[in-house]
Amino acid sequence: MTSDDAPPHATAAGTTRLERQLAFIIEADRLKSVLRRTTLCDGSRRENSAEHSWHLALMAMVFGQDAPEGIDAARVVRMVLVHDLVEIDAGDTFAYDAAGNEGRELREQRAAARIFGLLPADQHAEFRALWDEFEAQSTPESRLAVALDRLQPLLNNDVSGGGSWREHGITRAQVLQRMAPIEQGLPAAWPSVLAIVERNCALGYIRPDVADSSR
Amino acid sequence: MTSDDAPPHATAAGTTRLERQLAFIIEADRLKSVLRRTTLCDGSRRENSAEHSWHLALMAMVFGQDAPEGIDAARVVRMVLVHDLVEIDAGDTFAYDAAGNEGRELREQRAAARIFGLLPADQHAEFRALWDEFEAQSTPESRLAVALDRLQPLLNNDVSGGGSWREHGITRAQVLQRMAPIEQGLPAAWPSVLAIVERNCALGYIRPDVADSSR
Repeated sequence: MTSDDAPPHATAAGTTRLERQLAFIIEADRLKSVLRRTTLCDGSRRENSAEHSWHLALMAMVFGQDAPEGIDAARVVRMVLVHDLVEIDAGDTFAYDAAGNEGRELREQRAAARIFGLLPADQHAEFRALWDEFEAQSTPESRLAVALDRLQPLLNNDVSGGGSWREHGITRAQVLQRMAPIEQGLPAAWPSVLAIVERNCALGYIRPDVADSSR
Repeated sequence: MTSDDAPPHATAAGTTRLERQLAFIIEADRLKSVLRRTTLCDGSRRENSAEHSWHLALMAMVFGQDAPEGIDAARVVRMVLVHDLVEIDAGDTFAYDAAGNEGRELREQRAAARIFGLLPADQHAEFRALWDEFEAQSTPESRLAVALDRLQPLLNNDVSGGGSWREHGITRAQVLQRMAPIEQGLPAAWPSVLAIVERNCALGYIRPDVADSSR
Protein backbone atom coordinates (compact mmCIF):
# COMPACT_ATOMS: atom_id res chain seq x y z
CA MET A 1 0.00 0.00 0.00
CA THR A 2 1.48 3.32 -1.02
CA SER A 3 0.88 6.69 0.56
CA ASP A 4 -1.47 7.46 -2.34
CA ASP A 5 -3.91 5.02 -0.79
CA ALA A 6 -4.29 7.16 2.31
CA PRO A 7 -7.40 9.36 2.19
CA PRO A 8 -6.34 12.91 1.32
CA HIS A 9 -8.54 14.26 4.12
CA ALA A 10 -7.12 11.94 6.80
CA THR A 11 -5.20 14.76 8.46
CA ALA A 12 -5.90 18.46 8.70
CA ALA A 13 -2.62 19.16 6.95
CA GLY A 14 -1.21 16.38 4.80
CA THR A 15 2.45 15.79 4.24
CA THR A 16 2.80 16.28 0.49
CA ARG A 17 2.00 19.45 -1.46
CA LEU A 18 -0.97 17.76 -3.12
CA GLU A 19 -2.29 16.41 0.18
CA ARG A 20 -2.16 19.87 1.71
CA GLN A 21 -3.95 21.37 -1.30
CA LEU A 22 -6.67 18.72 -1.15
CA ALA A 23 -7.10 19.20 2.61
CA PHE A 24 -7.63 22.93 2.03
CA ILE A 25 -10.09 22.32 -0.79
CA ILE A 26 -12.12 19.87 1.30
CA GLU A 27 -12.11 22.21 4.30
CA ALA A 28 -13.33 25.05 2.06
CA ASP A 29 -16.52 23.08 1.38
CA ARG A 30 -17.74 24.11 4.83
CA LEU A 31 -18.22 27.71 3.66
CA LYS A 32 -21.34 26.43 1.85
CA SER A 33 -22.93 25.95 5.29
CA VAL A 34 -22.26 29.48 6.58
CA LEU A 35 -25.50 31.42 6.20
CA ARG A 36 -25.68 35.17 5.61
CA ARG A 37 -28.61 37.42 6.49
CA THR A 38 -29.24 38.27 2.84
CA THR A 39 -31.66 36.07 0.90
CA LEU A 40 -31.56 34.98 -2.72
CA CYS A 41 -33.18 37.44 -5.12
CA ASP A 42 -36.34 35.32 -5.11
CA GLY A 43 -36.48 35.47 -1.31
CA SER A 44 -36.71 31.67 -1.07
CA ARG A 45 -33.91 31.21 1.45
CA ARG A 46 -30.86 32.88 3.00
CA GLU A 47 -27.77 32.76 0.86
CA ASN A 48 -24.55 31.14 2.02
CA SER A 49 -21.07 32.65 1.92
CA ALA A 50 -19.76 30.29 -0.78
CA GLU A 51 -22.40 31.18 -3.37
CA HIS A 52 -22.13 34.84 -2.31
CA SER A 53 -18.38 34.66 -3.05
CA TRP A 54 -19.12 33.20 -6.49
CA HIS A 55 -21.54 36.03 -7.18
CA LEU A 56 -18.90 38.61 -6.24
CA ALA A 57 -16.31 36.93 -8.48
CA LEU A 58 -18.73 37.09 -11.40
CA MET A 59 -19.32 40.78 -10.62
CA ALA A 60 -15.56 41.33 -10.52
CA MET A 61 -15.37 39.86 -14.03
CA VAL A 62 -18.14 42.17 -15.21
CA PHE A 63 -16.99 45.39 -13.52
CA GLY A 64 -13.24 44.71 -13.43
CA GLN A 65 -12.95 45.47 -17.13
CA ASP A 66 -14.51 48.89 -16.74
CA ALA A 67 -12.49 49.78 -13.65
CA PRO A 68 -10.25 52.86 -13.82
CA GLU A 69 -6.52 53.31 -13.41
CA GLY A 70 -5.37 49.91 -14.66
CA ILE A 71 -6.86 47.83 -11.88
CA ASP A 72 -5.74 44.18 -11.91
CA ALA A 73 -9.18 42.62 -12.37
CA ALA A 74 -7.86 39.07 -11.97
CA ARG A 75 -6.57 40.00 -8.53
CA VAL A 76 -10.00 41.33 -7.57
CA VAL A 77 -11.53 38.02 -8.65
CA ARG A 78 -9.02 36.07 -6.54
CA MET A 79 -9.56 38.38 -3.58
CA VAL A 80 -13.33 37.97 -3.44
CA LEU A 81 -13.01 34.18 -3.89
CA VAL A 82 -11.06 33.91 -0.60
CA HIS A 83 -12.43 36.92 1.32
CA ASP A 84 -15.01 35.00 3.37
CA LEU A 85 -13.14 31.74 4.04
CA VAL A 86 -12.42 32.84 7.63
CA GLU A 87 -16.17 32.55 8.28
CA ILE A 88 -15.75 28.77 8.38
CA ASP A 89 -14.42 29.29 11.91
CA ALA A 90 -15.51 32.83 12.74
CA GLY A 91 -19.04 32.74 11.33
CA ASP A 92 -20.78 35.44 9.34
CA THR A 93 -21.35 38.60 11.36
CA PHE A 94 -24.35 40.67 10.34
CA ALA A 95 -23.04 44.03 9.15
CA TYR A 96 -25.55 45.95 11.28
CA ASP A 97 -24.94 43.95 14.49
CA ALA A 98 -22.55 46.09 16.57
CA ALA A 99 -22.35 43.59 19.44
CA GLY A 100 -21.69 40.67 17.10
CA ASN A 101 -18.85 42.61 15.52
CA GLU A 102 -16.99 42.84 18.86
CA GLY A 103 -14.09 40.44 18.87
CA ARG A 104 -14.66 39.70 15.18
CA GLU A 105 -11.17 40.77 14.15
CA LEU A 106 -9.43 38.41 16.58
CA ARG A 107 -11.72 35.51 15.63
CA GLU A 108 -11.03 36.10 11.96
CA GLN A 109 -7.27 36.43 12.43
CA ARG A 110 -7.18 33.04 14.16
CA ALA A 111 -9.38 31.55 11.45
CA ALA A 112 -7.14 32.89 8.70
CA ALA A 113 -4.07 31.38 10.34
CA ARG A 114 -5.71 27.96 10.61
CA ILE A 115 -7.52 27.79 7.27
CA PHE A 116 -4.92 29.32 4.96
CA GLY A 117 -2.34 27.39 6.99
CA LEU A 118 -3.70 24.16 5.54
CA LEU A 119 -2.08 25.12 2.22
CA PRO A 120 1.57 24.64 1.23
CA ALA A 121 3.68 27.50 2.63
CA ASP A 122 3.91 29.53 -0.60
CA GLN A 123 0.16 29.39 -1.20
CA HIS A 124 -0.55 30.03 2.48
CA ALA A 125 1.36 33.30 2.13
CA GLU A 126 -0.32 34.21 -1.15
CA PHE A 127 -3.90 33.53 -0.04
CA ARG A 128 -3.30 35.22 3.29
CA ALA A 129 -1.95 38.30 1.53
CA LEU A 130 -5.12 38.51 -0.57
CA TRP A 131 -7.28 38.34 2.55
CA ASP A 132 -5.13 40.92 4.39
CA GLU A 133 -5.38 43.23 1.40
CA PHE A 134 -9.17 42.89 1.30
CA GLU A 135 -9.41 43.67 5.01
CA ALA A 136 -7.05 46.68 4.80
CA GLN A 137 -8.86 48.23 1.79
CA SER A 138 -5.58 49.92 0.96
CA THR A 139 -5.38 49.25 -2.78
CA PRO A 140 -7.65 50.05 -5.76
CA GLU A 141 -8.24 46.29 -6.13
CA SER A 142 -9.38 45.85 -2.53
CA ARG A 143 -11.57 48.94 -2.71
CA LEU A 144 -13.34 47.52 -5.76
CA ALA A 145 -13.67 44.13 -4.01
CA VAL A 146 -15.26 45.75 -0.95
CA ALA A 147 -17.58 47.80 -3.18
CA LEU A 148 -18.81 44.58 -4.82
CA ASP A 149 -19.27 43.00 -1.38
CA ARG A 150 -21.62 45.89 -0.52
CA LEU A 151 -23.40 46.13 -3.89
CA GLN A 152 -24.39 42.47 -4.15
CA PRO A 153 -26.56 42.32 -0.99
CA LEU A 154 -28.05 45.71 -1.93
CA LEU A 155 -29.19 44.25 -5.26
CA ASN A 156 -30.52 41.12 -3.58
CA ASN A 157 -32.40 43.12 -0.94
CA ASP A 158 -33.84 45.38 -3.64
CA VAL A 159 -35.01 42.55 -5.89
CA SER A 160 -36.38 40.43 -3.03
CA GLY A 161 -38.54 43.29 -1.72
CA GLY A 162 -36.48 44.71 1.11
CA GLY A 163 -34.87 41.49 2.33
CA SER A 164 -32.68 41.81 5.40
CA TRP A 165 -33.27 45.60 5.67
CA ARG A 166 -36.94 44.99 6.22
CA GLU A 167 -36.51 41.96 8.44
CA HIS A 168 -34.13 43.75 10.79
CA GLY A 169 -35.53 47.29 10.65
CA ILE A 170 -32.42 48.86 9.17
CA THR A 171 -32.45 52.67 8.72
CA ARG A 172 -31.51 54.78 5.74
CA ALA A 173 -28.44 56.17 7.52
CA GLN A 174 -27.24 52.65 8.35
CA VAL A 175 -27.64 51.54 4.74
CA LEU A 176 -25.89 54.61 3.34
CA GLN A 177 -22.99 54.20 5.76
CA ARG A 178 -22.67 50.54 4.80
CA MET A 179 -22.80 51.35 1.07
CA ALA A 180 -20.34 54.28 1.23
CA PRO A 181 -17.36 52.23 -0.09
CA ILE A 182 -19.19 51.86 -3.42
CA GLU A 183 -18.87 55.59 -4.10
CA GLN A 184 -15.09 55.27 -4.17
CA GLY A 185 -14.62 51.66 -5.28
CA LEU A 186 -17.20 51.52 -8.07
CA PRO A 187 -18.26 55.13 -8.73
CA ALA A 188 -20.16 54.26 -11.91
CA ALA A 189 -22.71 52.35 -9.82
CA TRP A 190 -23.14 55.00 -7.11
CA PRO A 191 -26.11 56.87 -8.69
CA SER A 192 -27.93 53.53 -9.04
CA VAL A 193 -27.17 52.69 -5.40
CA LEU A 194 -28.66 55.99 -4.25
CA ALA A 195 -31.72 55.47 -6.44
CA ILE A 196 -32.24 51.97 -5.00
CA VAL A 197 -31.90 53.23 -1.42
CA GLU A 198 -34.38 56.06 -1.99
CA ARG A 199 -36.87 53.76 -3.69
CA ASN A 200 -36.73 51.28 -0.81
CA CYS A 201 -37.15 54.13 1.67
CA ALA A 202 -40.23 55.30 -0.24
CA LEU A 203 -41.60 51.75 -0.17
CA GLY A 204 -41.03 51.56 3.59
CA TYR A 205 -38.51 48.70 3.24
CA ILE A 206 -35.72 50.85 4.67
CA ARG A 207 -36.67 52.73 7.87
CA PRO A 208 -36.43 56.53 7.83
CA ASP A 209 -33.68 58.14 9.90
CA VAL A 210 -34.77 59.56 13.25
CA ALA A 211 -34.40 63.10 11.92
CA ASP A 212 -36.52 62.14 8.92
CA SER A 213 -39.28 60.41 10.86
CA SER A 214 -41.68 63.29 10.26
CA ARG A 215 -41.55 62.77 6.49
CA MET B 1 -37.31 61.71 -12.17
CA THR B 2 -34.17 60.61 -13.96
CA SER B 3 -33.54 57.28 -15.62
CA ASP B 4 -31.40 56.39 -12.60
CA ASP B 5 -34.62 56.07 -10.63
CA ALA B 6 -35.78 53.13 -12.77
CA PRO B 7 -35.12 49.80 -11.12
CA PRO B 8 -32.08 48.20 -12.81
CA HIS B 9 -33.94 44.89 -13.09
CA ALA B 10 -37.04 46.37 -14.68
CA THR B 11 -36.23 44.88 -18.06
CA ALA B 12 -34.40 41.71 -19.00
CA ALA B 13 -31.85 43.76 -20.87
CA GLY B 14 -31.49 47.39 -19.85
CA THR B 15 -30.55 50.18 -22.16
CA THR B 16 -27.30 51.45 -20.64
CA ARG B 17 -24.11 49.46 -20.19
CA LEU B 18 -24.54 49.50 -16.41
CA GLU B 19 -28.18 48.45 -16.63
CA ARG B 20 -27.26 45.49 -18.81
CA GLN B 21 -24.49 44.49 -16.41
CA LEU B 22 -26.82 44.69 -13.41
CA ALA B 23 -29.52 42.70 -15.25
CA PHE B 24 -26.97 39.93 -15.92
CA ILE B 25 -25.75 39.94 -12.31
CA ILE B 26 -29.29 39.71 -10.96
CA GLU B 27 -30.20 36.93 -13.40
CA ALA B 28 -27.07 35.00 -12.35
CA ASP B 29 -28.49 34.77 -8.82
CA ARG B 30 -30.81 32.02 -10.08
CA LEU B 31 -27.87 29.61 -10.42
CA LYS B 32 -27.99 29.32 -6.61
CA SER B 33 -31.28 27.44 -7.02
CA VAL B 34 -30.02 24.85 -9.52
CA LEU B 35 -29.32 21.68 -7.56
CA ARG B 36 -26.69 19.12 -8.49
CA ARG B 37 -26.71 15.43 -7.52
CA THR B 38 -23.54 15.80 -5.45
CA THR B 39 -23.93 16.65 -1.77
CA LEU B 40 -21.79 18.83 0.44
CA CYS B 41 -18.86 17.00 2.04
CA ASP B 42 -20.89 16.61 5.25
CA GLY B 43 -23.75 15.01 3.29
CA SER B 44 -26.24 17.49 4.77
CA ARG B 45 -27.79 18.56 1.46
CA ARG B 46 -27.28 18.63 -2.30
CA GLU B 47 -24.97 21.35 -3.51
CA ASN B 48 -26.06 24.00 -5.99
CA SER B 49 -24.27 25.03 -9.15
CA ALA B 50 -23.28 28.49 -7.87
CA GLU B 51 -21.39 27.25 -4.81
CA HIS B 52 -19.97 24.41 -6.94
CA SER B 53 -18.62 27.05 -9.35
CA TRP B 54 -17.03 28.93 -6.44
CA HIS B 55 -15.39 25.72 -5.26
CA LEU B 56 -13.95 25.11 -8.74
CA ALA B 57 -12.62 28.67 -8.94
CA LEU B 58 -10.85 28.20 -5.62
CA MET B 59 -9.39 24.94 -6.93
CA ALA B 60 -8.25 26.74 -10.07
CA MET B 61 -6.38 29.21 -7.85
CA VAL B 62 -4.75 26.35 -5.93
CA PHE B 63 -3.87 24.12 -8.89
CA GLY B 64 -3.45 26.79 -11.58
CA GLN B 65 -0.08 27.79 -10.16
CA ASP B 66 1.29 24.27 -10.42
CA ALA B 67 -0.09 23.69 -13.91
CA PRO B 68 2.39 22.87 -16.69
CA GLU B 69 3.24 24.63 -19.93
CA GLY B 70 2.45 28.21 -18.95
CA ILE B 71 -1.27 27.79 -18.45
CA ASP B 72 -3.16 31.07 -17.94
CA ALA B 73 -4.55 30.31 -14.48
CA ALA B 74 -6.65 33.48 -14.39
CA ARG B 75 -8.44 32.31 -17.53
CA VAL B 76 -9.20 28.96 -15.87
CA VAL B 77 -10.71 30.82 -12.91
CA ARG B 78 -12.89 32.92 -15.22
CA MET B 79 -13.92 29.85 -17.22
CA VAL B 80 -15.16 27.86 -14.23
CA LEU B 81 -16.99 30.90 -12.85
CA VAL B 82 -19.21 31.04 -15.96
CA HIS B 83 -19.21 27.37 -17.04
CA ASP B 84 -22.55 26.44 -15.41
CA LEU B 85 -24.56 29.62 -16.00
CA VAL B 86 -26.48 27.94 -18.84
CA GLU B 87 -28.05 25.67 -16.21
CA ILE B 88 -30.28 28.59 -15.17
CA ASP B 89 -32.36 27.70 -18.25
CA ALA B 90 -31.14 24.22 -19.16
CA GLY B 91 -30.93 22.69 -15.68
CA ASP B 92 -28.21 20.45 -14.32
CA THR B 93 -28.02 17.11 -16.11
CA PHE B 94 -26.70 14.22 -14.03
CA ALA B 95 -23.47 13.07 -15.67
CA TYR B 96 -24.53 9.41 -15.57
CA ASP B 97 -28.04 10.00 -17.00
CA ALA B 98 -27.80 9.13 -20.71
CA ALA B 99 -31.44 9.95 -21.44
CA GLY B 100 -31.24 13.29 -19.64
CA ASN B 101 -28.22 14.21 -21.73
CA GLU B 102 -30.19 13.92 -24.98
CA GLY B 103 -30.94 17.38 -26.30
CA ARG B 104 -28.72 18.90 -23.64
CA GLU B 105 -26.46 20.63 -26.16
CA LEU B 106 -29.29 22.44 -27.91
CA ARG B 107 -30.85 23.49 -24.58
CA GLU B 108 -27.53 24.84 -23.40
CA GLN B 109 -26.81 26.68 -26.65
CA ARG B 110 -30.13 28.49 -26.36
CA ALA B 111 -29.47 29.26 -22.71
CA ALA B 112 -26.02 30.65 -23.48
CA ALA B 113 -27.46 32.97 -26.13
CA ARG B 114 -30.10 34.33 -23.75
CA ILE B 115 -28.06 34.60 -20.54
CA PHE B 116 -24.76 35.92 -21.90
CA GLY B 117 -26.86 38.07 -24.23
CA LEU B 118 -28.00 40.10 -21.23
CA LEU B 119 -24.50 41.61 -21.08
CA PRO B 120 -23.16 44.50 -23.19
CA ALA B 121 -22.03 43.19 -26.59
CA ASP B 122 -18.29 43.09 -25.83
CA GLN B 123 -18.80 41.18 -22.59
CA HIS B 124 -21.41 38.94 -24.21
CA ALA B 125 -18.75 37.87 -26.70
CA GLU B 126 -16.08 37.43 -24.04
CA PHE B 127 -18.18 35.38 -21.62
CA ARG B 128 -19.59 33.29 -24.45
CA ALA B 129 -16.08 32.56 -25.71
CA LEU B 130 -15.09 31.30 -22.25
CA TRP B 131 -18.09 28.97 -22.17
CA ASP B 132 -17.47 27.73 -25.72
CA GLU B 133 -13.84 27.04 -24.83
CA PHE B 134 -14.87 25.06 -21.74
CA GLU B 135 -17.30 23.00 -23.78
CA ALA B 136 -14.80 22.33 -26.59
CA GLN B 137 -11.99 21.26 -24.22
CA SER B 138 -9.58 22.31 -26.93
CA THR B 139 -7.05 24.30 -24.87
CA PRO B 140 -4.84 23.50 -21.86
CA GLU B 141 -6.92 25.96 -19.83
CA SER B 142 -10.21 24.26 -20.67
CA ARG B 143 -8.75 20.80 -20.03
CA LEU B 144 -7.69 21.90 -16.56
CA ALA B 145 -11.11 23.47 -15.96
CA VAL B 146 -12.88 20.22 -16.94
CA ALA B 147 -10.48 18.21 -14.76
CA LEU B 148 -11.46 20.38 -11.77
CA ASP B 149 -15.14 19.95 -12.65
CA ARG B 150 -14.63 16.17 -12.35
CA LEU B 151 -12.31 16.19 -9.32
CA GLN B 152 -14.53 18.31 -7.06
CA PRO B 153 -17.55 15.93 -6.99
CA LEU B 154 -15.16 12.99 -6.60
CA LEU B 155 -13.75 14.59 -3.45
CA ASN B 156 -17.23 15.39 -2.15
CA ASN B 157 -18.48 11.87 -2.84
CA ASP B 158 -15.41 10.41 -1.16
CA VAL B 159 -15.65 12.55 1.97
CA SER B 160 -19.43 12.17 2.29
CA GLY B 161 -19.23 8.38 2.19
CA GLY B 162 -20.07 7.53 -1.39
CA GLY B 163 -22.54 10.33 -2.07
CA SER B 164 -24.19 10.25 -5.48
CA TRP B 165 -22.26 7.12 -6.57
CA ARG B 166 -23.92 5.15 -3.80
CA GLU B 167 -27.33 6.75 -4.17
CA HIS B 168 -27.50 6.03 -7.89
CA GLY B 169 -25.59 2.71 -8.07
CA ILE B 170 -22.80 4.02 -10.27
CA THR B 171 -20.19 1.45 -11.41
CA ARG B 172 -16.41 1.61 -11.33
CA ALA B 173 -16.24 1.79 -15.14
CA GLN B 174 -18.68 4.70 -15.19
CA VAL B 175 -16.68 6.61 -12.59
CA LEU B 176 -13.36 5.99 -14.33
CA GLN B 177 -14.78 7.12 -17.67
CA ARG B 178 -16.14 10.26 -16.05
CA MET B 179 -12.85 10.99 -14.30
CA ALA B 180 -10.65 10.32 -17.36
CA PRO B 181 -10.16 14.04 -18.18
CA ILE B 182 -8.25 14.45 -14.90
CA GLU B 183 -5.44 12.23 -16.18
CA GLN B 184 -4.69 14.74 -18.92
CA GLY B 185 -5.89 17.99 -17.35
CA LEU B 186 -4.41 17.60 -13.87
CA PRO B 187 -2.01 14.64 -14.05
CA ALA B 188 -0.53 15.32 -10.59
CA ALA B 189 -3.86 14.37 -9.03
CA TRP B 190 -4.47 11.22 -11.11
CA PRO B 191 -2.86 8.72 -8.69
CA SER B 192 -5.00 10.12 -5.88
CA VAL B 193 -8.11 9.83 -8.07
CA LEU B 194 -7.38 6.15 -8.74
CA ALA B 195 -6.75 5.52 -5.04
CA ILE B 196 -10.05 7.17 -4.11
CA VAL B 197 -11.95 5.14 -6.71
CA GLU B 198 -10.42 1.85 -5.57
CA ARG B 199 -11.07 2.63 -1.91
CA ASN B 200 -14.73 3.43 -2.62
CA CYS B 201 -15.01 0.21 -4.64
CA ALA B 202 -13.59 -1.75 -1.71
CA LEU B 203 -16.08 -0.06 0.61
CA GLY B 204 -18.95 -1.00 -1.74
CA TYR B 205 -19.80 2.69 -2.42
CA ILE B 206 -18.95 2.30 -6.11
CA ARG B 207 -20.49 -0.81 -7.76
CA PRO B 208 -18.12 -3.36 -9.31
CA ASP B 209 -18.08 -3.63 -13.10
CA VAL B 210 -20.07 -6.55 -14.52
CA ALA B 211 -16.83 -8.37 -15.39
CA ASP B 212 -15.64 -7.79 -11.83
CA SER B 213 -18.82 -8.93 -10.12
CA SER B 214 -17.24 -12.22 -9.01
CA ARG B 215 -14.64 -10.37 -6.95
